Amino acid sequence: MSFADRLAAVVAERQSQIALGLDPDPARLLPEAVSQAGAAGGEPPERAARAVALHCRAVIEAAAPACAAVKLQLACFERLGGPGWEALADVCVAARAAGLIVIADGKRGDVPHTAAAYAQALMGSTPTPFGDVPGLGADAVTLNPLLGRDALEPFVTAARARGGGVFVLVRTSNDGAAEIQDDAPEGAPPLRDRLARLVDELGAAGAGESGLTDVGAVVAATEPALLSGLREEMPRAVFLLPGVGAQGGRAELLGPAFAPGPAAALIAASRSIVDPALEAGAAEAARTAAEALRAAAWEVSSARA
Amino acid sequence: MSFADRLAAVVAERQSQIALGLDPDPARLLPEAVSQAGAAGGEPPERAARAVALHCRAVIEAAAPACAAVKLQLACFERLGGPGWEALADVCVAARAAGLIVIADGKRGDVPHTAAAYAQALMGSTPTPFGDVPGLGADAVTLNPLLGRDALEPFVTAARARGGGVFVLVRTSNDGAAEIQDDAPEGAPPLRDRLARLVDELGAAGAGESGLTDVGAVVAATEPALLSGLREEMPRAVFLLPGVGAQGGRAELLGPAFAPGPAAALIAASRSIVDPALEAGAAEAARTAAEALRAAAWEVSSARA
Repeated sequence: MSFADRLAAVVAERQSQIALGLDPDPARLLPEAVSQAGAAGGEPPERAARAVALHCRAVIEAAAPACAAVKLQLACFERLGGPGWEALADVCVAARAAGLIVIADGKRGDVPHTAAAYAQALMGSTPTPFGDVPGLGADAVTLNPLLGRDALEPFVTAARARGGGVFVLVRTSNDGAAEIQDDAPEGAPPLRDRLARLVDELGAAGAGESGLTDVGAVVAATEPALLSGLREEMPRAVFLLPGVGAQGGRAELLGPAFAPGPAAALIAASRSIVDPALEAGAAEAARTAAEALRAAAWEVSSARA
Repeated sequence: MSFADRLAAVVAERQSQIALGLDPDPARLLPEAVSQAGAAGGEPPERAARAVALHCRAVIEAAAPACAAVKLQLACFERLGGPGWEALADVCVAARAAGLIVIADGKRGDVPHTAAAYAQALMGSTPTPFGDVPGLGADAVTLNPLLGRDALEPFVTAARARGGGVFVLVRTSNDGAAEIQDDAPEGAPPLRDRLARLVDELGAAGAGESGLTDVGAVVAATEPALLSGLREEMPRAVFLLPGVGAQGGRAELLGPAFAPGPAAALIAASRSIVDPALEAGAAEAARTAAEALRAAAWEVSSARA
């Protein structure tokens, strides 16, 4: 089954286009996760990683029914070293068990030989003299396209072989994005348009029943004015839309992203779902926040139909 | 002491501008590393990671006297999960003990908040309720600048605070690089030139005694015709030059990179140093290969003086 069709099935079943963003900060975790991890003893990296995993598991358990996917920020696990990577693998398992599509948000990008190694790490496995070592088992990854087409292809190949997908950065949500991705001399296309063309071309051979492909695009929810144009350039790509909530993006303005159908975009939300749980000191508050966002997004996507 | 001055001291002492590239493939390791790791038992990931660490340690021990730096390809460790990350940390320690500048080659790039988390992972430490968790302790990192200036700054700040440095992708060595980094409409500057300007500006406040800065640039050794132009645009940046050897780059053609001085560039070499050791089945062969490359590079840089 193609990635887009798998995603469409989850979106339809849960009536949700929310990607729960988990970028755990060990200094801001649910109190029960910290106390439980602390009680188990061990060195600081092990205890911190255990607390991070428990925190993420609790948020997933609470919010998953209102979500279609989870977006795991790799940096936040890597900073805890080996134990952090183990926590990442543990959270992947929990997310999959909760029926969520797992997106490994690492924004990787490297020369083809190395891109293939990253694909093994995130979506495949690695042959060794001692047997195959399985990777993270993510359903999808975020990719940085600066190195060009041949650096993306090993990921697309690995993803397609297992019904997975990729999300290529086209327009990011940070303030500094414009200087590189938007600015262009009079008459020249901005870089984001060239990247959009690349996304469309790479996805051509990966369309599912829905018409959507396995090569998606990361497009900032903070720049709704760009959405229609990018949707025209990438009519078959699933958009992953970060920046709703804390960064200022609003679900109501994301309609054009859903033009091809309800599974044509995922709204990534991290702080706006997790912060209420932190403020309440209990994971359950994440469900209320996720549900509110789910309902708002579903309404926007339905209005387009 | 600034990064460039630290690097200049190592380059002068060893008369070497070689960055030993380690991108270990668990299926192609020194036989003694595999047999020693296998004898110790454990699950496949642990054994494979141990073999990788032993392999890298042996290559470092053999080649270090002819090298100034080591460039560790993060993908090749990440694909072995938590044990792989532990192996990476172990190899970092060995490289530092051998007097090498450690470059974590992860080509990271993300929004500022996440970039700061990657900086903690690779060059800093992470506060947790159980105490600070130290990161990898790399001296320098490679960065992807697609997200723009604000996404690079957290790394520059973290690096500068500890006498470390960054290498920003400006022109990569893969075949597909040209489409994104070089191609531009008539009259418009290619993306690589815009990235070069960014590198020059970010480095302005980080110059050492040598005049070189802590914001370097990754420039393909496979495109020597571009070197003079990029050197003019980044007169104070240390160039990290991948692509010599297997990818077709030749040390003799890299003279323009060394125009500002002998420590103005590092030549990254992986397969051309490690493959002879694999063919001989013994790490010592890496020393001969590294020494030959060292001598060639030193001659080129001296000819420019």
